Amino acid sequence: MTRTTRSWAYEARPQRVVTGRNAAGRLVKAELDRLGARRIMLIAGKSELATAQKLLGGMAAAATFTGVRPHVPVEVAEAARACAAEAEADALLCVGGGSTTGTAKAVALTTGLPIVAVPTTYAGSEATDVWGLTEGTRKTNGADPSVLPRAVVYDPELLVTLPPALTVNSGLNALAHCVDSLWAPNAGPVPTALATEGARLLARGLTAVIADATDLAALEACQAGTYVAAAAFAAAGSGLHHKICHVLGGAYGLEHGAMHAVLLPHVLAFNEPAAPQAAARIAEALAGAGYGDGSHALAALLALHRALGAPTGLGALGLRADQVSEAAELVLEKVPATNPRPVTLPDLKALLHRARTGAEPVRDHVGDSTGETS
Amino acid sequence: MTRTTRSWAYEARPQRVVTGRNAAGRLVKAELDRLGARRIMLIAGKSELATAQKLLGGMAAAATFTGVRPHVPVEVAEAARACAAEAEADALLCVGGGSTTGTAKAVALTTGLPIVAVPTTYAGSEATDVWGLTEGTRKTNGADPSVLPRAVVYDPELLVTLPPALTVNSGLNALAHCVDSLWAPNAGPVPTALATEGARLLARGLTAVIADATDLAALEACQAGTYVAAAAFAAAGSGLHHKICHVLGGAYGLEHGAMHAVLLPHVLAFNEPAAPQAAARIAEALAGAGYGDGSHALAALLALHRALGAPTGLGALGLRADQVSEAAELVLEKVPATNPRPVTLPDLKALLHRARTGAEPVRDHVGDSTGETS
Repeated sequence: MTRTTRSWAYEARPQRVVTGRNAAGRLVKAELDRLGARRIMLIAGKSELATAQKLLGGMAAAATFTGVRPHVPVEVAEAARACAAEAEADALLCVGGGSTTGTAKAVALTTGLPIVAVPTTYAGSEATDVWGLTEGTRKTNGADPSVLPRAVVYDPELLVTLPPALTVNSGLNALAHCVDSLWAPNAGPVPTALATEGARLLARGLTAVIADATDLAALEACQAGTYVAAAAFAAAGSGLHHKICHVLGGAYGLEHGAMHAVLLPHVLAFNEPAAPQAAARIAEALAGAGYGDGSHALAALLALHRALGAPTGLGALGLRADQVSEAAELVLEKVPATNPRPVTLPDLKALLHRARTGAEPVRDHVGDSTGETS
Repeated sequence: MTRTTRSWAYEARPQRVVTGRNAAGRLVKAELDRLGARRIMLIAGKSELATAQKLLGGMAAAATFTGVRPHVPVEVAEAARACAAEAEADALLCVGGGSTTGTAKAVALTTGLPIVAVPTTYAGSEATDVWGLTEGTRKTNGADPSVLPRAVVYDPELLVTLPPALTVNSGLNALAHCVDSLWAPNAGPVPTALATEGARLLARGLTAVIADATDLAALEACQAGTYVAAAAFAAAGSGLHHKICHVLGGAYGLEHGAMHAVLLPHVLAFNEPAAPQAAARIAEALAGAGYGDGSHALAALLALHRALGAPTGLGALGLRADQVSEAAELVLEKVPATNPRPVTLPDLKALLHRARTGAEPVRDHVGDSTGETS
């Protein structure tokens, strides 16, 4: 066989996922009962508090924490932990997007309390054991089994009111989990299987949700795609795309989902020539949703981007021209050794410059970039 | 979106998988060390004992059990358990096919001892929490988290000497895990992702291994395919195919792998008209290995069957014509309620009759079978 399979490793971590239309309340109760939870700490942003309380139904929360903020500042984590201790909570129920799940993870990290997560975006944090905290402009990440939610509850009804811009940015963040998993440090058959399926589901689901935000089958496809995408990412680890986003998010506070949406085509354009198998997977998955003919990954992704009206420039998110060089240097230190293509400082400067200005991503040939850009 | 997604649930169970060429000895030692194992019970059939002992390297086994027999008779399980107790074993290392892993599971079921599994076929038992015991002709199965091996070690070098007939039968048993997972009771996005990838890997890998048994990349593809296929099956549960095999294996003692190989096209022929999404997945996955054009699942599977020289008749495996009616009645009681197509006694008699005589599988239209066979 001409294709080579390198050695791989995979670690499955225990987690339950349950789904159902208009079933979140019933499912949440069943999962909390299964954990034997009696003193529940509810974590939700203010805008999701009413939804969250409704899910609890007749149950009373021992504590309610609404001080959720993006990137989980250390002071938020400490306040949430104090709240859990004071209430003698024995389980955490979080209802919201990535920052809300992240706040629950910050509590679980130091207390070991089990989390039941009810996602209301496509961020996918519920499927990973990755936590993140921010102290000033410094973002710290880590992986710890104790922060992986014990149970995840997906209900498409909770997504019906998600604004279109959030659907697109959060959905493309989920798609980025798929793409990056194909060449991340622990890439292998399990993440590849999940990433391929995730890309199929997300491309089809997002397209239909943008056409009709109340299409429950499409919302279910997006949620299923989000789960397998994030599970792929949890298994494969961070590839080049996530390293770039981590650096830019931490140093310049760019909006998380939109930044993922803008950068993904640029990273794909860069890696595609050196990763034909990954590119073939992406092209095939997107063709299944009507984007491209299955032979060009970047063209298909750009077609999806256009159809979704995705953002195209980091400049509009706040990245200044004079920050590009510094950003490239910060990213260079984090480039995974397993990236399919060597990454130089000029490569990163060019990539970030194009992403900042909203220029079309450039697919050049490996080792041929000087020739093509001269 | 026109396609409907029904609700699904998924439970991930903790397991480590490590792989490497000619690395089994090193990987086994690392996994046993990680478990803190000091008194290892080695379980292997006589023909694999030398290989197994070599994997242990300098380590001494506290006990060695070689009394492995197909379908794990209760007396074998009891002897193995007594052996573990006498040796005060604190971990089980099994090296072999499904029966060997099954013997280790029988010990784990009553003792809770952790298993490190080193598979030497494509049976896939290492990825499931399913155990089986046979008392006389009665086969009992169950699922228990304690029997799921804590670690699995895949090394393609251990498969180089697998005889071609075993490669084909065991490999098609693995492929059956993929196909049946697409319509099993707990089918959903995770098993579908794993099953699709498994079918791609197995079709490509088995074809190349039959051409050259020493093709390590192909053997790796078969092992990776086996793992994701069995993980899909573990998540999705038994569909119609596995219910038929369970009944026939228990009641008539037909050879496990060969029975799977014979029956799979017949079950696919029966379900395909009512399961277009599953059929499309199978057709697409097999087309990737050069079988069919991606539009006809059954034709592609039959082409793969012919290329591999797979067995075609249950008669040759020992099923008599006068047993078909009884077998059909036994199977009828076990048909999963979720099967994509209702199953009648005449359907099963016709299916088993064709499978027994080695007739070409018949793809009829749903609700139209009387018309087509008249």
